[in-house]
This record gives sequence, C-alpha cells and structure tokens, in this order.
Amino acid sequence: MKIILAPDSFKGSLSAEGVCDALQIGLRRVLPDAEIVRRPMADGGEGTLDAIVGAASTSAGMGARRKQALVRNAAGQSAEAGYALIRHGIYEAAVIEVAQIVGIEDAHNMAVPVGDRSSYGVGELIRLLLAEGIRHFFIGLGGTSTNDGGAGLLAALGVKFIGTFRREIVPSPNGLAKLISVDVTGLDARLVDCEITLLSDVNNPLTGERGATAIFGPQKGVAMHDVSKVDAVIAAYADRLEAALQRHAKDKPGAGAAGGLGYALQLIGAKFESGAQTVARLIGLADACKGADWLITGEGRSDEQTLLGKTPFAAAQIAREHGNKILKATLVSGGVEAGSLTALNATFNGGCFSIVPGPMALDQAVIRAPELLANMAEQIARIATVRDR
Amino acid sequence: MKIILAPDSFKGSLSAEGVCDALQIGLRRVLPDAEIVRRPMADGGEGTLDAIVGAASTSAGMGARRKQALVRNAAGQSAEAGYALIRHGIYEAAVIEVAQIVGIEDAHNMAVPVGDRSSYGVGELIRLLLAEGIRHFFIGLGGTSTNDGGAGLLAALGVKFIGTFRREIVPSPNGLAKLISVDVTGLDARLVDCEITLLSDVNNPLTGERGATAIFGPQKGVAMHDVSKVDAVIAAYADRLEAALQRHAKDKPGAGAAGGLGYALQLIGAKFESGAQTVARLIGLADACKGADWLITGEGRSDEQTLLGKTPFAAAQIAREHGNKILKATLVSGGVEAGSLTALNATFNGGCFSIVPGPMALDQAVIRAPELLANMAEQIARIATVRDR
Repeated sequence: MKIILAPDSFKGSLSAEGVCDALQIGLRRVLPDAEIVRRPMADGGEGTLDAIVGAASTSAGMGARRKQALVRNAAGQSAEAGYALIRHGIYEAAVIEVAQIVGIEDAHNMAVPVGDRSSYGVGELIRLLLAEGIRHFFIGLGGTSTNDGGAGLLAALGVKFIGTFRREIVPSPNGLAKLISVDVTGLDARLVDCEITLLSDVNNPLTGERGATAIFGPQKGVAMHDVSKVDAVIAAYADRLEAALQRHAKDKPGAGAAGGLGYALQLIGAKFESGAQTVARLIGLADACKGADWLITGEGRSDEQTLLGKTPFAAAQIAREHGNKILKATLVSGGVEAGSLTALNATFNGGCFSIVPGPMALDQAVIRAPELLANMAEQIARIATVRDR
Repeated sequence: MKIILAPDSFKGSLSAEGVCDALQIGLRRVLPDAEIVRRPMADGGEGTLDAIVGAASTSAGMGARRKQALVRNAAGQSAEAGYALIRHGIYEAAVIEVAQIVGIEDAHNMAVPVGDRSSYGVGELIRLLLAEGIRHFFIGLGGTSTNDGGAGLLAALGVKFIGTFRREIVPSPNGLAKLISVDVTGLDARLVDCEITLLSDVNNPLTGERGATAIFGPQKGVAMHDVSKVDAVIAAYADRLEAALQRHAKDKPGAGAAGGLGYALQLIGAKFESGAQTVARLIGLADACKGADWLITGEGRSDEQTLLGKTPFAAAQIAREHGNKILKATLVSGGVEAGSLTALNATFNGGCFSIVPGPMALDQAVIRAPELLANMAEQIARIATVRDR
C-alpha cells in the first residue's frame, strides 16, 4: 500500500511538516510496512517556502538553496528575510514568501500601525534578485500585515509617489492619502524580461466591498470606521498608477491578495495562479502520487471554501488524476463544518474526519493537535484496512 | 454487505433506538442496498425494557407484551410503572427495569430527599407478578434514585423492619437509622420457586469505600459528610438481615448496584449477570450477527471502562464470535478518551470515532447528536467501502 501525505498546515497549531509527522506516527501503528510518501503542502501563504524547499531536498533533480537577504520589514526596519533559489526547468528561479518579509505574525511589523506599514521590502528583495540575474519568480502571497496596495513594492522597484511640494511620500496607506502624482519612468526595466508567478488562494479584487481593505483590512488593524476611507485612498492610488502605466489590474482576481501586492505585481506583468496547485507542481505531487492507493490531506478547518481551490482540494484532484484507479482521498482537519459535508464528499471519497475525539474547546484541540492527529490517522487506517490486516 | 447496529443509548442525548435511526440515515447515504439489522442495546439500566421489547417485536417466536402496574415510586406515591412480559423458553418471564419505578430521572422521586426514598415499589411489582403466577424475572438495575440497600423491596415482599416501641419503620435510609430488629418470617415463600436474573454493569459491593453509598450515593443526593454515616446504617441493616436469614450477599459483586437492590435481590436468590450480555441474549444479537460484515456500536462516552463489560464491548465480542470471519467492529461515541484508544483498539478493529466534527462544547454535541451521528456513520461508511463502491 502506497500512502501520500499532502496536508496544508493547521494554522496556529502545526506546520504541514508537523502534520505529516503526526499522520505518519498514527499510520505506522497500523501499517508498519506501508510506503508513506510525504509531500507537505501550502497554498502560497505561510509555509510555502518550507514546502517547496522541503520537497526539493527530497526529490532528485530539483536542488533548492535557502537564502537570506537584508530588506525592510513592514515597519521599515532592516531584517533578515528567508527565500530560496530553485532549479526550474533550465532556469534558476527564486521562491519568495511575502509573509517572511511583511508577515502578520511578525511582532516588529505589528508594532507599527497598519497605516504606516509598507511592502517596500518585497520590492527590495526582487530588485536584489534582479541584480543577481534572476528573472523567474514564484511569489507566495498571504499572511501579510500590509494594506498598501503594493505601493511599497513598486516604490522599491523605481516608481515615485509624489505628494505636496513635489516631495516623495512614504508608500503606506497614510502616505498614499497625500498622493498627488505618480512617476513611473523609473520602473525597473528588467521586469519586462521577468516571469513572475503569484501563488495565492485569494480571488478578491483590489478595492470595493470584496476588496483587500474591506475583507482583510480589519484583521490587520484597519479600524472598521476607517475601512471606506482607506479603500478610497487605495482606489485613488490605483487610478493614478493605471493612468500612468496605461495598464489595468484593479479588478483582476487576486488583486486584493496580500494587501494589494497581488495588484501591484499583476500590474507589472505577474500572472496569478492557484497557490495550492502551483506548490503541488513545484513539489512534484503528481509524480509522487503515481501508484498511490491512499491520499491523506488536511487543514486546520474545512468547509465549502476548501473546495475553492484550497490545498486539500488541489491535492485530492491531483492524486485522483495520477494515483491508482481506486485511490482513496481522505480529509483530516481540525474541524469539518457539518453543513459542508455533502459538498466535501464529492472530492473526498475516503471520508472527512475531525481530529477532535469528543467535546473539546478549540485551544485544547490546538495544543493537543499532534497527539489527536496521530490517533485519528490510526483509527482511519484501522477501518480502511480491516480486510488487509 | 450486512451491517449490525447494536449501540447503547447516548445517555442524556439519544435512546439506543435513536442512535440506530441516526446511524442508519448516515449509512443509507452511502450504502443504499446494504442489509442493515438494528439491535438497539442496553446494559440493564435505562433503555433495557425498550431494547428487549423492541427486539421481541421484530424477531419471530419471542412475543413481548408491554404492561403497566400501579406501584409506589421512590417518594412513596402511587405511579404507573412500565414492565414487560416475554416468552422465555417454555416460561413466561417478566422484564422489569427498576428505573421505571424508582428512577433518578423522575422529578417526583427527586423531590423527596434520598434519605426518605425507598425501593418499596420494586418489591410491590414483584409481588403483583408472583400473584399472576410469574416465576421468572429479568430485572434491569441502574438509574435508581434510591440508596436503601433494597430494604423497601424486602419490606414489600414481607420482611418487617422494627424500630423503637416495636413499631415498623419506613424502609428508607432515615428509617433504617432507627432499626432495632428484623423479622423475616413473613418473606414471600413463592420466591423460593423463582429464577431472578439481575442485569447490571456495576460490580460494587453493598458497603465500604467501593460500596453503593460511597460511589453512587453523592449523585443521588447523599451529602459528602453523610456518606460514612449512611454507609454504617446500611451495613448495620445488612448485618441484622443476614443474621436473620442465615445468608450472605453484602460482598457479592453487584450488591451495590441500584442503591443496594443488587444486594437485597441476591440475598433472596437472584443471580447476577452482565447487563449487556444478558440483554444481547434476550434480543437475539448472536443470531442477528450471523453472516454480518460490520458491527457498529456506540455509547455516550467511551474509555477503558467500556472494556469492563459495557454494551459496546459485549456487542463486539458477540459479533466477532458470530459474524463473518473478517467482521469489522466499529465504535462511534459522543467522545472517546484519547488515552484509552490503545486499550479500545484490541476490541474495535474497525476503529473508534467520536461524532464531534471539530471543537465543540458538550451541550452542542448533545443537542446535535442525531445529525452528527448520521454524518459520522456516512464518513466511516465512505472510507470503509471505497473499494466496494
């Protein structure tokens, strides 16, 4: 029996690697001789870099080198940020996870108000890599603390944002409120030769009621009563920028990802892809699934959103396509919304299970996740293989 | 595929019949053509009568008639109590569930302090049945509000408990505190011809630190600081009784069941059996399991106690013995204690699952039990039968 473990992380509880560890422990109690292939996944957000580097280190022909660069964090301070260089076909490609630079989990970023935070460091890192000759980028969006419409990134790449007295303004929401004109003549010309792939599971536009500020602003610290004001600032910024560049990206799906980094990057030519599917491609999930009998995937919480291209959905699709004809695809999550089961069933023919073994508070489930995950893996392995044992 | 549903009730949430309903709904979503045989179980406590009458009404050759009798409840008021008459071999046998008479769920019983409650009505019902010629009894113990050492039962069957001024005392803990002598000469002589089987999952002795008062008294209302005093009263009562009858039962396993009814009934010749195994026998579980591929059992909460002869354990043993060689036995409970899984695994080769689909408070799990049970049945059916579908 060949089993593929391809879970997302359980956010706030376990990395995807940690989920694989726990699943494997549980499965081994029942199936000591099964072939277990680990492909911890990610959706473009936090964990993307780990997933890609991790897979590269275990699969032949795809070297990955972890690197560090000194760039500005969201608060404007210099900080080490991790990224990776991988072989991608005949090219060397960079893998960037924006959360490594301007992440919402970073206390330094969060110490400064969201109105003053900027994605400048992300642009800095791209510029550094351009200087090293890199022209292929995979950029994982998600988990950012910024809401600057990607103005910081563009500023680092040569765009000038001008306020009163012809002074350059800070590329942050508060700075952009004073924006009078945009000068795009300095935009780094090397970007034209680049192939930038954005990894995300967010389809939101830049502005409006489904936009970055309205949907993701509040969790970054935008006060509810400021949402429409900030949204208008970002919209005005985008209008000036689009007029100057004669390009449009405001309403593209994913423009609202990562506080508008999805917008700024699409405006300079990046293409937007499903984060989970691209990660799956980069980590060779399809190949790993050849001859597989059972896929086990999972995430912190599953509901109908899971079917909108999230990691478990992408993993199940790929495994179904490349695994054995009667492959089982099983979802093991922190919680599975009861009302979404009918929809989830179509994708997960091997059942949808929560790790929770009885009435339990969320914080307990989070703390005990490794133990509970191992136990659930054991129990589903036992019911799935009664006839084989 | 032949599936046996033989769960206990989920106490405080669903009857065993209700558990079968929910399991069946979930299984039918996946396995519309499977043969599903329902054998709702019980352990001698609440639900025993329903389980036996229910099975009798569906299996050939074992008629069961529900009956009502007017006897005293634990508070001393006349009340209708349900029991049943069944064919048992060549005899007619009575099935009595003591919780129907002196049950802890009955608000009338609980309105009177435990010190004044009595099991008199149970003895009354036996006397009524003796008058009708019944000599075979199955008596489900458990779920009682009384802690009278079975003195009430014995009083109704002719034993006189004498206090000061040679007055008969009330056969309750408070009454027994004034006990001076016991007169057993009036004990109903017809009892000698009787075969009385006690159904229980309690092995405790009548008195002492594992006795009825110490272990079950507090949940019936015995104040913690009164436990040793009440225990001493019951011990003194039993000493006088045993001296008078020249029989001993105080330390027999199960003497402490049902507030000491297990004691009084064993003293008059009743034999003590595992409630779950006897119920299984009476409902024909072994026969039902012939040719079965899958047993699904369950209970409100599972831990290592489950393996001490509780309903799911008994059901799994019987199914393993009488079902197909590769029969799966699966446990589906409200909650499964994580630390007990290793022990439970030996009995439930088809896995142990909680119905809870994520972090959730107990009261929510209780309220949503039918929906959650159906969903879990569906999911385990899906993972168990991927290759069959």
